[in-house]
Amino acid sequence: MARKMVYHVLLAFLLLTIISVVSVRYEPNWDSLDSRPLPAWYDAAKIGIFIHWGVFSVPSVESEWFWWDWEGAKTKTVVDFMKANYPPDFTYADFAKNFKAEFFNASEWADIFQASGAQYIVLTSKHHEGFTNWPSRYSFNWNSQDVGPARDLVGELAAAIRNNTDMFFGLYHSLFEWFHPLYLQDKANKWQTQKFVESKTMPELYEIVNRYKPDVIWSDGDWEAPDTYWNSTNFIAWLYNDSPVKDSVVTNDRWGQGIMCKHGGFLTCSDRYNPGKLQKRKWENAMTIDKQSWGYRRNTKLSEFLTTDELVGTLVETVSCGGNMLVNVGPTSDGKIIPVFEERLRELGQWLKVNSEAIYGSHPWTYQNDTVTPNVWYTSLKISMEQMLYAIFLDWPTNKTVHLGVPKTAEWTTVYLVGREDLGPVNFTTLHPQGVVLEVPQIPTQELPCQWAWTFVFQGVLQ
Amino acid sequence: MARKMVYHVLLAFLLLTIISVVSVRYEPNWDSLDSRPLPAWYDAAKIGIFIHWGVFSVPSVESEWFWWDWEGAKTKTVVDFMKANYPPDFTYADFAKNFKAEFFNASEWADIFQASGAQYIVLTSKHHEGFTNWPSRYSFNWNSQDVGPARDLVGELAAAIRNNTDMFFGLYHSLFEWFHPLYLQDKANKWQTQKFVESKTMPELYEIVNRYKPDVIWSDGDWEAPDTYWNSTNFIAWLYNDSPVKDSVVTNDRWGQGIMCKHGGFLTCSDRYNPGKLQKRKWENAMTIDKQSWGYRRNTKLSEFLTTDELVGTLVETVSCGGNMLVNVGPTSDGKIIPVFEERLRELGQWLKVNSEAIYGSHPWTYQNDTVTPNVWYTSLKISMEQMLYAIFLDWPTNKTVHLGVPKTAEWTTVYLVGREDLGPVNFTTLHPQGVVLEVPQIPTQELPCQWAWTFVFQGVLQ
Amino acid sequence: MARKMVYHVLLAFLLLTIISVVSVRYEPNWDSLDSRPLPAWYDAAKIGIFIHWGVFSVPSVESEWFWWDWEGAKTKTVVDFMKANYPPDFTYADFAKNFKAEFFNASEWADIFQASGAQYIVLTSKHHEGFTNWPSRYSFNWNSQDVGPARDLVGELAAAIRNNTDMFFGLYHSLFEWFHPLYLQDKANKWQTQKFVESKTMPELYEIVNRYKPDVIWSDGDWEAPDTYWNSTNFIAWLYNDSPVKDSVVTNDRWGQGIMCKHGGFLTCSDRYNPGKLQKRKWENAMTIDKQSWGYRRNTKLSEFLTTDELVGTLVETVSCGGNMLVNVGPTSDGKIIPVFEERLRELGQWLKVNSEAIYGSHPWTYQNDTVTPNVWYTSLKISMEQMLYAIFLDWPTNKTVHLGVPKTAEWTTVYLVGREDLGPVNFTTLHPQGVVLEVPQIPTQELPCQWAWTFVFQGVLQ
Amino acid sequence: MARKMVYHVLLAFLLLTIISVVSVRYEPNWDSLDSRPLPAWYDAAKIGIFIHWGVFSVPSVESEWFWWDWEGAKTKTVVDFMKANYPPDFTYADFAKNFKAEFFNASEWADIFQASGAQYIVLTSKHHEGFTNWPSRYSFNWNSQDVGPARDLVGELAAAIRNNTDMFFGLYHSLFEWFHPLYLQDKANKWQTQKFVESKTMPELYEIVNRYKPDVIWSDGDWEAPDTYWNSTNFIAWLYNDSPVKDSVVTNDRWGQGIMCKHGGFLTCSDRYNPGKLQKRKWENAMTIDKQSWGYRRNTKLSEFLTTDELVGTLVETVSCGGNMLVNVGPTSDGKIIPVFEERLRELGQWLKVNSEAIYGSHPWTYQNDTVTPNVWYTSLKISMEQMLYAIFLDWPTNKTVHLGVPKTAEWTTVYLVGREDLGPVNFTTLHPQGVVLEVPQIPTQELPCQWAWTFVFQGVLQ
Repeated sequence: MARKMVYHVLLAFLLLTIISVVSVRYEPNWDSLDSRPLPAWYDAAKIGIFIHWGVFSVPSVESEWFWWDWEGAKTKTVVDFMKANYPPDFTYADFAKNFKAEFFNASEWADIFQASGAQYIVLTSKHHEGFTNWPSRYSFNWNSQDVGPARDLVGELAAAIRNNTDMFFGLYHSLFEWFHPLYLQDKANKWQTQKFVESKTMPELYEIVNRYKPDVIWSDGDWEAPDTYWNSTNFIAWLYNDSPVKDSVVTNDRWGQGIMCKHGGFLTCSDRYNPGKLQKRKWENAMTIDKQSWGYRRNTKLSEFLTTDELVGTLVETVSCGGNMLVNVGPTSDGKIIPVFEERLRELGQWLKVNSEAIYGSHPWTYQNDTVTPNVWYTSLKISMEQMLYAIFLDWPTNKTVHLGVPKTAEWTTVYLVGREDLGPVNFTTLHPQGVVLEVPQIPTQELPCQWAWTFVFQGVLQ
Repeated sequence: MARKMVYHVLLAFLLLTIISVVSVRYEPNWDSLDSRPLPAWYDAAKIGIFIHWGVFSVPSVESEWFWWDWEGAKTKTVVDFMKANYPPDFTYADFAKNFKAEFFNASEWADIFQASGAQYIVLTSKHHEGFTNWPSRYSFNWNSQDVGPARDLVGELAAAIRNNTDMFFGLYHSLFEWFHPLYLQDKANKWQTQKFVESKTMPELYEIVNRYKPDVIWSDGDWEAPDTYWNSTNFIAWLYNDSPVKDSVVTNDRWGQGIMCKHGGFLTCSDRYNPGKLQKRKWENAMTIDKQSWGYRRNTKLSEFLTTDELVGTLVETVSCGGNMLVNVGPTSDGKIIPVFEERLRELGQWLKVNSEAIYGSHPWTYQNDTVTPNVWYTSLKISMEQMLYAIFLDWPTNKTVHLGVPKTAEWTTVYLVGREDLGPVNFTTLHPQGVVLEVPQIPTQELPCQWAWTFVFQGVLQ
Repeated sequence: MARKMVYHVLLAFLLLTIISVVSVRYEPNWDSLDSRPLPAWYDAAKIGIFIHWGVFSVPSVESEWFWWDWEGAKTKTVVDFMKANYPPDFTYADFAKNFKAEFFNASEWADIFQASGAQYIVLTSKHHEGFTNWPSRYSFNWNSQDVGPARDLVGELAAAIRNNTDMFFGLYHSLFEWFHPLYLQDKANKWQTQKFVESKTMPELYEIVNRYKPDVIWSDGDWEAPDTYWNSTNFIAWLYNDSPVKDSVVTNDRWGQGIMCKHGGFLTCSDRYNPGKLQKRKWENAMTIDKQSWGYRRNTKLSEFLTTDELVGTLVETVSCGGNMLVNVGPTSDGKIIPVFEERLRELGQWLKVNSEAIYGSHPWTYQNDTVTPNVWYTSLKISMEQMLYAIFLDWPTNKTVHLGVPKTAEWTTVYLVGREDLGPVNFTTLHPQGVVLEVPQIPTQELPCQWAWTFVFQGVLQ
Repeated sequence: MARKMVYHVLLAFLLLTIISVVSVRYEPNWDSLDSRPLPAWYDAAKIGIFIHWGVFSVPSVESEWFWWDWEGAKTKTVVDFMKANYPPDFTYADFAKNFKAEFFNASEWADIFQASGAQYIVLTSKHHEGFTNWPSRYSFNWNSQDVGPARDLVGELAAAIRNNTDMFFGLYHSLFEWFHPLYLQDKANKWQTQKFVESKTMPELYEIVNRYKPDVIWSDGDWEAPDTYWNSTNFIAWLYNDSPVKDSVVTNDRWGQGIMCKHGGFLTCSDRYNPGKLQKRKWENAMTIDKQSWGYRRNTKLSEFLTTDELVGTLVETVSCGGNMLVNVGPTSDGKIIPVFEERLRELGQWLKVNSEAIYGSHPWTYQNDTVTPNVWYTSLKISMEQMLYAIFLDWPTNKTVHLGVPKTAEWTTVYLVGREDLGPVNFTTLHPQGVVLEVPQIPTQELPCQWAWTFVFQGVLQ
């Protein structure tokens, strides 16, 4: 079947595109930088895995903002936790020794991530605590080689992702560090000095790009200072013009106060951004399976995790509206992805195996969701001149027929239940001026193509 | 509906039975002890939660046999793990300090266990390592009060189970200790001395019974020495005759070499015992959600856990054959039930909420599983003179009709899909001399009463 | 010179005496036990080293009573120390893991102890905390093999003392344990039960005697309960009659309430007992170089240590009055004797090398100290029929002559400065009815025979 | 007595001198910098205390070069120590958490140091490991505030020295760091880049000078790179011209390859530099009481420590030849000066109390040691126009007279035994052309003015 072209052929094509791209140079200002087309692989990819790992994974309580909550905001629960479990003089850096990563096997992670159907990953190379998960020249004894794991965590994961999978490899990087004294000094100087940026942030960013060649730079921690303080546009111009990843790299929009949701590469706007309607620019919904935290928490309850159903629903809604979904998991300090995360990711992957064509490489349709039946979302794909429309039902229809307000069908239109094309075309009645009534296939629960959302593909639909 | 009498009424009735029992005294020999009727609550309960928690939860690698695997059997993986992660002189007892239980909240556990539908719990009061989870008089500085948690773990859980739930509270206890020098001395003396039994095992058993009044004594670690060495019959006679739990307590069959599967209370026969056919005496299938370990393991993969589907299947098979199922979870050293365990338990509870009448208080039927359609298991219940037959389908029928070889229906027989009685009786055709053809209700996946196994109840069935 | 016979010839003779002793059996009552002559080596030895080592060496604050001070007496300084430096739930047993003894080299200790001139050592096999420094059968996981050092500390030191030195080897043993639940239970039962004694104290004592064959059993921790509770007389009778050390062993007097200073072997009466006058029975001055503690303290000041001058003075006074001195040092948890202890011990040894004849094997004289000149103490020794009198000056005389009230000299009497016999006899004038005026040798400071106390020996003195 | 003017009057005078000094500006070249006169307090002070404290104090084995010996030189003893006592992945930075300084009381240290008679102290603000003992802006999470002690160690000691004593406060600072990646990068670039100097070394040096106002900058770790790499002359020019300590500060000579023993302030030339003869420029003998290490070692023997006798001898020899002595002690990681160090320091102080005038403020004499009698060293002092000559005897003369070859006495010359002037002048016979024969006072050992070296002062000596 024509539409069954595999996503990876599509991707291969996109990569070829990269190579043939005409070299343009960008200026270090937002007008110029914003004019760069996003490398095509990113929009096609749709799903990434976000990984928050660091010294905060040792206490693994509250969230990856543990240090701030404890000594910055002095949140009572965290202050009390420390009092109850540690000596009075215990410092945050004292935790680093117990970041052991003894079970960290990058190939195992790569296997789980790939099984989820994700097409890229984004690892925290450094979070706001300042601890670098690689042996940075600019973070002596506050990095994963010098203390704790005694390993290059970024390097190991980069190698495994590239050797064992066809996913893209990205890095999260925090511009600011809550407690770095040079940052605090620059801040006290109202950003008139840039000691921190010059000796820490920028050298680090160049270092990770040159050393690990990430396809995504996921910047964060920008909001307190203007982009001029951060030297953001200079860095991005280098990234786009001269860096070793200039053709493939994408970046986000967190590059200085007031920049987010306006400039940069894809827009993230806010954590768990999910606008529910089509956006003008490419955007990303960075969200978490643990609803309360990005970093691992030891003391979670089941009810705090998204179900697979919710996860699939979020993906469908996000993709229909033109976004990518970046699903976060927080590994343990000993280096494992806990089973509940693995389960969610593998179940997402099972769903995607069946419904891949409705997601990867797809485009938003004229309508994002159905006008008559709730919880039905649309995506589309053009396969060799033929337009496919995907209606993704988050709930299986409870009646024998279902009325959709959006599709404009014709005589030659055929409809299939994706994953059960063997059942033959689905009968439908065309309504005027638009809309259809589908006859819902009557099949027992185990014979459904998947467990969560179900896709009907319309081939040869009119607009 | 008559058959909808609640399980708890049944239980209340059974408890009244306990009180009115005629007092008989048992002799310290197996003939006499075996003659004691099992307190009725136990058979009615069907499902218990087994909890393996101890110092082994600190390394939380390999299994609760970690110490033995390391220094007894010298299993390569464990020896290598220790070499890779600990100093050469590290001892097993050195782990105890890190058994912190800082998140242990007995009420949270009680809530999860009750939500699973279990009717009793069995906690390791002491495993083969000898560490007592209560402040024993006989295990100075090798117990949870003196080192590590600094708490009475048994006492806290007993209180929460009794205050917050209507579950029964049981204790696992290992007779032997791998490395206790007095045990090893008695063993070297070919069991002609009983120093260990006299100064450790027996005082401990009396201590936990008198202090915590457990409804189950789940003995283990018996197999190297004869029951005469262990003084088992004397202890059980006291337990049955004079202990504070003499009316309610049940015990198992692990009381000395050659005793298991022959004498005692309910039979456990072997770990994960699941004979698949009816047994003469009451038995228990003690099994694990983590297929490879009873104790918590930090380095598991999702594939090593039973799915809820498998768990429900095991329960159905076990109960059909007259057994109880004791489902094990291994808490972390910081005192949490990890989400994947919580998920399995809560999903089991959801299933049981729908299908409770087919399980609690049920009896095996003449046949255990169907003779024509595979993966259909039977249980039965007599409700006010009327015999109910439950056919539990592990798979939802894929055809519109299904042929069962076992039920002998009559004109007055009615059949319902349990949990969807609102759909009205299920149509069927009586076959001769026995068997029926059921018309399978055509309902969409979300309208099924539950997600895993489905029960059809036959009211007024002939034999 | 006749009096220059070496001490070790004397000792060899005493040991021969042991072998030829007529075998007498003692009854388990104090009259009989008190009638046993103390094995001769003990009185001849004069100086022993006491070693307090245990889990208390880990916090190494306050004293070896740390646990009691913290959780028994709740001494503010200790409670505050714990609050300031440990998590709230930290337990005493949690310290054990850090008792590492990584630098413990028994041969090094033996070398230092022998250099001190001591003739025996007494090691805490178990202090009131209950932690056994040997792998006891009766203290599972609360002993130096199972947790912490992972070594048999008693065994290693016993071997080194016996292989590398000619010192006697003794063991301290605490009858009671502050927090042992069986002890507390017996105590609550007003000593009418003996569970603790039967399952812990006595088995342990037999175990250390049979396994390590100590020449001294230095009992302690007896004072709360009567000797009948402890079964002391039975144990001592066995020790004297049938134990493997029946001929050589000595014991002390701490065997039950009211027994100390009355019954047993040598009398200790109180810590740092130093009565300053002759005693009827053999006694021992057990004292410490760290004036405030027997166990090692990390936070000492120099002013809290005895000077060598004070140490020599105490020895001289003790021996003059018929006592032995047992000098205590507290090793660190990593197994070292810190330099200040080593210095005191080696300097004591330098002094004893010069003045050995006045100490080892000596007897008290009619007078213990001089009646005219203060700080002059007497000892005596009979060498092949000739009576030697030693006048030990704690201060070097500041005048050219010095008047002693005690010696009764004759024409044939000769006086020497011990260690400078090469200077020839010291001139003196006999006074009547007794006393002498010595002419003090005029020698520069570096030519004195030793740095601290100086001995004049009177040969051929009249009574 | 005129010569009994106290040293502190002298010092007060010198400090006044500082204030009245004419302001000269120095150029950043050695000719100019070398032309600066050393502030007078330094030569007058004669004795300082050197303190090596850092993360190396945690393993406290081998020496303060532990890290290098382990992972740089791979010295077998250190590699083996790590293998025997730590897990394979343990890193050096993992030690930092256990640098607790829980007993560190700066006032106690100040008290001990002052009691030693020292006039200044020099603390390692940062050793080659790079760990700063103050909360540096340039060593985030690798400093004593952020990890381990959680305190500003430099600040606390500076305050105590200044508030409680009249000593001067100095700081040791290592230019290089063995393993700092920026340093290694500059080194790989053959010192053509200065990233390390610009972002680490120089900012740190300015930071400690501005923040703690040290009177001594004791530079080290210079030898691999030229002074031009280090920017040494620029820093020193600032230090001399514009720093807050420009009038009082002294520095040493370790400012780049080939500079040591040639340029800078006082010369140190090599560790334990003690040339035994007069030097042209002011120099310092930086030496250790623990003969093998500057950092604390847990596993020392007494024989590895200098005796007080050796320490006094070294001081006398050093001062006679125009040097200062900087005596090193290594505190423990918990913050204590161990007793053997305290003892040596306090005994040195006792000696200095008696012999202060021969040391503080003294000048070398024409001869440094005597030409006839060995182990006699000379110093001199001009007190209100009168020249004093001090002959310091390391050994007390064994004969009744002693012949000195150096002093040229006259009729009016008087000689006293320092500390026993109450005995009156010492008789002597003038020899020609020079030299004297002294009559040694005959006094018993306890009446000597001190225990170690003894000083005879010649008032009114010729030349």
